[in-house]
Amino acid sequence: MTSDLDNLSVVLVAVRNPLNIGAAARAMSNFGVKSLRVVNPYEAAFREARSAVGAAGLLAAAEKYDGVAEAVEDCNLVVGTSAVGKRDLQHRLLPLEQGARLIKRQLKTGRVALLFGSERYGLSNEELSHCHWLMRIPTREEHGSMNLGQAVAVSLYELVRGRKAASAKSAAAKKDKIPAKSADVERLTQVLFQVLRVSGYIEPRAVAAEEKLRRLIRRLQLNAADAAVLVGMLRQTAWKLNSNEKRDK
Amino acid sequence: MTSDLDNLSVVLVAVRNPLNIGAAARAMSNFGVKSLRVVNPYEAAFREARSAVGAAGLLAAAEKYDGVAEAVEDCNLVVGTSAVGKRDLQHRLLPLEQGARLIKRQLKTGRVALLFGSERYGLSNEELSHCHWLMRIPTREEHGSMNLGQAVAVSLYELVRGRKAASAKSAAAKKDKIPAKSADVERLTQVLFQVLRVSGYIEPRAVAAEEKLRRLIRRLQLNAADAAVLVGMLRQTAWKLNSNEKRDK
Repeated sequence: MTSDLDNLSVVLVAVRNPLNIGAAARAMSNFGVKSLRVVNPYEAAFREARSAVGAAGLLAAAEKYDGVAEAVEDCNLVVGTSAVGKRDLQHRLLPLEQGARLIKRQLKTGRVALLFGSERYGLSNEELSHCHWLMRIPTREEHGSMNLGQAVAVSLYELVRGRKAASAKSAAAKKDKIPAKSADVERLTQVLFQVLRVSGYIEPRAVAAEEKLRRLIRRLQLNAADAAVLVGMLRQTAWKLNSNEKRDK
Repeated sequence: MTSDLDNLSVVLVAVRNPLNIGAAARAMSNFGVKSLRVVNPYEAAFREARSAVGAAGLLAAAEKYDGVAEAVEDCNLVVGTSAVGKRDLQHRLLPLEQGARLIKRQLKTGRVALLFGSERYGLSNEELSHCHWLMRIPTREEHGSMNLGQAVAVSLYELVRGRKAASAKSAAAKKDKIPAKSADVERLTQVLFQVLRVSGYIEPRAVAAEEKLRRLIRRLQLNAADAAVLVGMLRQTAWKLNSNEKRDK
């Protein structure tokens, strides 16, 4: 039986302890989520984690990636999780319950990535910059940081809770409502960087400025058609700028 | 600050792995539940479990009992948790969400015990016989059995969920919500037209194309801060393009 949950990928980024990866796999299996993606795990042997009780197959099928961009390429919505310490977040931050509602809606029509960061540091600013928004489990302020496997279990529970059998294909989603895939949004972001570098708006390797712009672009929540139009514009602009530059030489 | 949750005791019965006791303690601390009771743990040294990250005090204060009867003596309501295998249950079995509502009501006036059984066998019939009713986390039938620490985390989350409208709104979230004024959006639109004309993306007086782009820009529902950043980018790009053009003449 296929379900909306087949459109959900749990993405574990830079996780140190293989037991936590196994525990995440077990919770996924408990709640019926199949796609596990692992970015830069600290231990290559994570696939043997004994904590994946009843979920060895799911763990064996996990896909490994070298970066967040690659891991979320085919996703229409990318959501980060955060314990929010003192860090000053640049993203919209939703309580789990509210975020889960938005995710469930998106799962009807496209792939969603749910990101969890390393045990010690969570998601870095660069990793967060690939997210559309963030979600927070309502833990106490004084002790916000959860065990990774427990955080995965609670998040998936909230997504599964009270589910009705996937309502038979709701009226074909309007074109406006098909969100752009992450790969397309990243392509747009890269052409934008190129234009802004030639224009002198950003320096060649201004990482912080680029992260800020990447977040801004994600906030727009572009639909696929608009993203394509914008890429076209930027390419033309880049072409014009570059041809001017070349002629000057 | 005292809360209804002070009336809740988590009771772990015949748990084998001390790491699971530690993980339960951590989840309790995350969600603000303080009273941990342990019945016949397999290892006496459970109090040193390293998995109780941030909850060492809670674990140290755990009370140890020799039987379920003693552990729930002062409780007005005793609820068991069950993965429900093939076992023929004699109890009323409620989904977690529904059970949690009853528990929350009871917590206002008296103590509630929430029982979790051993990793391998769950709660025995004798242990279950001390319960008023049972509660089940909505896991898949094919793989119902959860890790103990994860089951505790999910159950407590459900009890805490929606309590105090987790007001974890970041400063960024508030700023995000101030929509750009129409005048600013139109200013952005005009600079964009200018860039696209110089780049050759649109013709000088292509009214239909301009209207299409104007609609696209409105669809983005920009907030004020992002609109300002985008205008800045486009101005810089326009300046670069224009200065190139002039030099050519």
